[in-house]
Amino acid sequence: MIEVEVKGYADDKVFERVRESFRLIRKEYHEDTYYQHPCRDFSKTDEALRIRVRRFNGHFEAFLTYKGPKLDSVSKTREEIEVPIEDPDAHARILEALGFREVLTVEKVREKYYVEKGITLTLDEVEGLGKFVEIEALTDDREKVPELVEKLRGILLELGVTRFERRSYLELLLGKGG
Amino acid sequence: MIEVEVKGYADDKVFERVRESFRLIRKEYHEDTYYQHPCRDFSKTDEALRIRVRRFNGHFEAFLTYKGPKLDSVSKTREEIEVPIEDPDAHARILEALGFREVLTVEKVREKYYVEKGITLTLDEVEGLGKFVEIEALTDDREKVPELVEKLRGILLELGVTRFERRSYLELLLGKGG
Repeated sequence: MIEVEVKGYADDKVFERVRESFRLIRKEYHEDTYYQHPCRDFSKTDEALRIRVRRFNGHFEAFLTYKGPKLDSVSKTREEIEVPIEDPDAHARILEALGFREVLTVEKVREKYYVEKGITLTLDEVEGLGKFVEIEALTDDREKVPELVEKLRGILLELGVTRFERRSYLELLLGKGG
Repeated sequence: MIEVEVKGYADDKVFERVRESFRLIRKEYHEDTYYQHPCRDFSKTDEALRIRVRRFNGHFEAFLTYKGPKLDSVSKTREEIEVPIEDPDAHARILEALGFREVLTVEKVREKYYVEKGITLTLDEVEGLGKFVEIEALTDDREKVPELVEKLRGILLELGVTRFERRSYLELLLGKGG
């Protein structure tokens, strides 16, 4: 399965249009802590290691996620291995004992919306970065990717998005800090 | 809490005496896979990273465990951080993607016995190494450690143990392999 994602900058108006047009699936709070490898420069290898703590409807879930380098220069396709973890603090202590260092924590409020079968949209309010809208579709046909990207961009343009962004929130925050 | 452990080589007779003298708590099957750090030599730093898969009474449990260096030269006391994991295969894939390499897997059948309040004994049949008996007590009083060690050694001697061993099964297996 290939995940096709398009992300753009948003504002209050874009958020309003989304809230009026689509059905809310749920609202989540994310605390994503990213780690630097003890002897590999993830910013050069294009990898990431993250502990995500997710809260929604009174639930609490945590995940450890490894993201491999992007597989090509056009899409954001990459290997991703994600496992649920019960005790994120103890996991963080193990990572630190092994020499992994916390880079930073990305905090955001995420609203997830249903657009149509196979397409979801998220409104993200990211601490320190502002508002974003991201739209996502899944396909198992690699040849359909360019067409899908155009469709997703079209939906964002219609919602009033004028500026797109390929970089992750982590990259944006690191770029900001210098 | 300080964990005081004494381990010795055993044979069929020692196993029989234990089975006749103490109450079996449970029988477990362990598959312990040890990993080498991508840029640190654990055999020199005296650390270990392990995924343990434990089966007993039809149950299945898995843990990720970091063991820090021994804190002194006499006892086996060391920092240990252990977390339950749901999907040991996916965890192993994350470790490998991060550059950790499998060193070897220690397989054993463990029988756990109750000796008296605060003291447990285990019979281990370790694949490739043979039979061992280990006795363990907990105390929160550091000054009582030497006295406890003597008591535990005494119990093993009475059971017929003549040779003690401080090294871990991993160390013994690695020494064996060359």
